[in-house]
Amino acid sequence: MTTTELDAQLRRVQGWIEANLDRHINRLQRLVRVPSISPTGQQMAEGAETTAQLLREIGCQVVEIVPTSGFPVVFGEWQAGQPYTLVIYAEYDVMPADEPAWKVKPFEAALVDEPGLGRVLMGRGARNQKGPLVSILNAVEALVALDGKPPVNLMFVFEGEEELGSRHLPEFVEKYADRLKRADAMLAPHTHMNRQGEGLLWAGSKGIIVMELEASGQKWGRGPVGADAHSCYKAFVDSPAWRLVQALATLVSPDGNRVLVDGFYDAVLAPSAQDDALLAAFQDRFNPDFLDMGITRHIEDVHGLELMRRFFYSPTLNINGLSGGYAGPGIKTLLPAAATAKLDLRYVPNQEASDLIAKLRGHLDRHGFPDVELRVLGQSDWSATPLTSPVVSAAMSAYRRMGREPQVWPRNPGSIPFWIFNRAPLNLPFASAGLGHAVRSHAPNEFIVVDGNAQVFGLAQFETSLAAILYEFAAASAHA
Amino acid sequence: MTTTELDAQLRRVQGWIEANLDRHINRLQRLVRVPSISPTGQQMAEGAETTAQLLREIGCQVVEIVPTSGFPVVFGEWQAGQPYTLVIYAEYDVMPADEPAWKVKPFEAALVDEPGLGRVLMGRGARNQKGPLVSILNAVEALVALDGKPPVNLMFVFEGEEELGSRHLPEFVEKYADRLKRADAMLAPHTHMNRQGEGLLWAGSKGIIVMELEASGQKWGRGPVGADAHSCYKAFVDSPAWRLVQALATLVSPDGNRVLVDGFYDAVLAPSAQDDALLAAFQDRFNPDFLDMGITRHIEDVHGLELMRRFFYSPTLNINGLSGGYAGPGIKTLLPAAATAKLDLRYVPNQEASDLIAKLRGHLDRHGFPDVELRVLGQSDWSATPLTSPVVSAAMSAYRRMGREPQVWPRNPGSIPFWIFNRAPLNLPFASAGLGHAVRSHAPNEFIVVDGNAQVFGLAQFETSLAAILYEFAAASAHA
Repeated sequence: MTTTELDAQLRRVQGWIEANLDRHINRLQRLVRVPSISPTGQQMAEGAETTAQLLREIGCQVVEIVPTSGFPVVFGEWQAGQPYTLVIYAEYDVMPADEPAWKVKPFEAALVDEPGLGRVLMGRGARNQKGPLVSILNAVEALVALDGKPPVNLMFVFEGEEELGSRHLPEFVEKYADRLKRADAMLAPHTHMNRQGEGLLWAGSKGIIVMELEASGQKWGRGPVGADAHSCYKAFVDSPAWRLVQALATLVSPDGNRVLVDGFYDAVLAPSAQDDALLAAFQDRFNPDFLDMGITRHIEDVHGLELMRRFFYSPTLNINGLSGGYAGPGIKTLLPAAATAKLDLRYVPNQEASDLIAKLRGHLDRHGFPDVELRVLGQSDWSATPLTSPVVSAAMSAYRRMGREPQVWPRNPGSIPFWIFNRAPLNLPFASAGLGHAVRSHAPNEFIVVDGNAQVFGLAQFETSLAAILYEFAAASAHA
Repeated sequence: MTTTELDAQLRRVQGWIEANLDRHINRLQRLVRVPSISPTGQQMAEGAETTAQLLREIGCQVVEIVPTSGFPVVFGEWQAGQPYTLVIYAEYDVMPADEPAWKVKPFEAALVDEPGLGRVLMGRGARNQKGPLVSILNAVEALVALDGKPPVNLMFVFEGEEELGSRHLPEFVEKYADRLKRADAMLAPHTHMNRQGEGLLWAGSKGIIVMELEASGQKWGRGPVGADAHSCYKAFVDSPAWRLVQALATLVSPDGNRVLVDGFYDAVLAPSAQDDALLAAFQDRFNPDFLDMGITRHIEDVHGLELMRRFFYSPTLNINGLSGGYAGPGIKTLLPAAATAKLDLRYVPNQEASDLIAKLRGHLDRHGFPDVELRVLGQSDWSATPLTSPVVSAAMSAYRRMGREPQVWPRNPGSIPFWIFNRAPLNLPFASAGLGHAVRSHAPNEFIVVDGNAQVFGLAQFETSLAAILYEFAAASAHA
């Protein structure tokens, strides 16, 4: 197809999607309404079955619910007889939605009017990741309806443990490696348009280690053992809760922002001049609060290029939650037998997880806290793709064709486990892209835009942008 | 009565109680089975009504459920026409019993066989304070049955907010001050016999301030405001949870045991040589784990006199509980908008609560944490009675008459609000005494002994010891 032909084709695609939009919305509602919450294990089987059903509906010749040692992977193949093949990766599991601030029931997938954006679909998973998962299926359905088949062969890998750190996705990849190696690249569809209508894409991801630190009388050999004690004993009995506080306090600077573990930053690749230039290209358009979480004040009031450098290139150590003793209403004067902090450590090229964990453990030991347990709950490595790769340039071309100059983020600052495709044994280049708008992952009132406005694309344009990437990937691969 | 007559009379009392023991046990079960949990407000009205009913059963001429701004005080008078008058103080409220380690239902008041102790009555409140409350009523019933009336006039003050820091007991005392001032002393019955059969008594109490510290984006003007954020923002957004940790860490020494707030210890009265001699008298018999909570290892491995000095004379700052962010199963990578620590501060003569709170607030401000909120949730002052007072010497005589040399504790290391009777406007001397054995206040599997063994008194001897104190108080007051 020439450029003009492709533009005309994308108009047809969008027209077809608009004519079928109610059905596309309903398809997303069907999946959001299944509370497939991997951290609690709730309705994961139903989530996998519904996802498989959607793959069948768009004409995949192969649809399998593949067991793993954890929750299953839903695998599908659309064998189009095309020269190039893309893996499409997303997850069908979501986080719990127990926050009291939800203004709708989080698993009803209600259509809600959002000021300035028209209708949005609000519910857990609308952004992360059920919205993008269903949207690419809808886009493929449109391509099949218009062309009889998609422009590239597709292998869908929809996992059920992303929110658990993709623990068993490597197991699946190993099992299916022969098939997956036939792919030329991986595409992770996502709602990468921000509130200003800017389109961004990711060519990498930060890594993450989720862990908990626990101080206990049991391990310490001091303080109450097993059961909490009456707090009058504090006069001559040690406190595991104070011990946890003191151990935690040694880990970071007084402002909570610099990690004080020896060698923690040693392997961090600082951004090169070229990297900085890439960031500077969209510095003025960069919206730090890309998840629309009401973040206004920054550490040390940094902004511009320095803020972007921290966001993309800095590892972090964060407290997810504190617990121990009595935290209910009123008063209960306990000397707790144990206290726990959940932490996440986000890390970057070329830091290594095992090295960081060893350094943390060593820090606690050297600071006199050998008894404070460090338990790793989950881990996902970082990843990186050259920006010259066809899958990245295809996404950039598709964005421009949809009228948006891309912001190329060197990496996702969250922790999508692209590394499982990006490293051995598959070594696939990848991009995470798509011009949809959605907000509030892991937070109350998560939504994806359905209608949109002059700046912000609605669902039909989002799906069209994903179709555009598939066309552009076929073209870019042919020219590479 | 001569000494010999009194001994004979106490044998009669104990015989009468033994003959009526099943009914006495049942009376205690009736009260324990009402879950009058003041921290949650559960069934407090039923708790007051049952308590009032018990006062009526033993013949009080006056029984009133006296409303306060909080939960009511149950007041009773046994007007015996005697020359001396004792106030009897206890509480009918209990702590929650939500600990998973309970091996019986905590509000069924089951009789359980406890190795070496025969039957015990297990349930929330068995020790703290329903056991002693019912036991003195049972003792009075025996005296009335045998003598027609008790040897002293009695005023019962049974409050419903002890576990909330006795917030409205001063309101009651002010309202009933004219009547209460007719009393000569206050007696707080308690299970003061330890597992070795030693009898102790208290002539004072530590004070307590219960508070919570909260760090929040809202107050700080940094970090997430209102809702928790996705933790990828940690790269450029401050963390209220780290802030709480750092603020807490400044409050105590690295071992968690010495308070580092300027001037915190200034007003502490160190034990005098006379005080030390008092402690040394029972140093060899002193059981630090008097609540039987499995405490074996002590701060700096202190023991003997030094341990006792800390227990009775040292103020403490303890963490009751930590909370904030996600503390459930699995993983939720949040940057929490707020984090909270509940603390209790136990203090001693001549420290003052308002001064200590101001010093804590000043410490946080000076260390750069003016935004960390300090909220006082409850407070109860310390108290002290001279050991030469008739009520203390009566208790000591009664113990010896029951065959036990008393351990005189200068103060209760917990926080029973004796100050409300001990300070203005009543200025009553007092003792907390009684030879019963019970364990695990505020903890799972709380119980009071019913049968006992050669060392440890059962319920009938406990009640007899309380009767002995009433007889001895009448005698000691006449000789004072």
